[in-house]
Amino acid sequence: MQDITSRWGVLALAALHDGPHRFGELRRRVDGVSERMLAQTLQRLERDGLVARTVLTQIPPAVEYTLTDLGRATAAPLVALIGVVEHRIDEVMTARAEYDRRTAGAG
Amino acid sequence: MQDITSRWGVLALAALHDGPHRFGELRRRVDGVSERMLAQTLQRLERDGLVARTVLTQIPPAVEYTLTDLGRATAAPLVALIGVVEHRIDEVMTARAEYDRRTAGAG
Repeated sequence: MQDITSRWGVLALAALHDGPHRFGELRRRVDGVSERMLAQTLQRLERDGLVARTVLTQIPPAVEYTLTDLGRATAAPLVALIGVVEHRIDEVMTARAEYDRRTAGAG
Repeated sequence: MQDITSRWGVLALAALHDGPHRFGELRRRVDGVSERMLAQTLQRLERDGLVARTVLTQIPPAVEYTLTDLGRATAAPLVALIGVVEHRIDEVMTARAEYDRRTAGAG
């Protein structure tokens, strides 16, 4: 679970849910990830059988990352989760402000 | 997102998806969590507006944790995700064994 629900795991799976991507494209889509962290994340997801790595026989050579069937089944609820959080982020922010006001008084 | 997708966040939300629970019940359901980590996790989830804390007026006093509407909307895709992972954990294990065999040869 932790490979999947890590910050970069969630974002990489969500990005690949839209379709196959090369490393550079993924890096642009996964906002704020370093080259090293993205490589490690993709390696873990590949090891878990969620992501397939295809070496494209072209010049210059390129590597494409795709979700496997298992990866798609895993990414679908994550994309739903991101949707809920993005859609209702205002409620989260309001709740936080109220909580902080309440607990500041109690401190 | 990180409060939700932390190891204990996921498990606490999933446990509360089944219904309201007291702290001790939650601790038994969230396998392996320490008292301190569960308390911190519930506090973060409460701050985010996902979990409501109700003090039950009884003797001895007790506290019950419930998902808010936002918490239910968030927990639903997480429960779906856990379902996928549990259902297909054999595929993950097989993929890992194959990956490790492949990369051991390449090392």
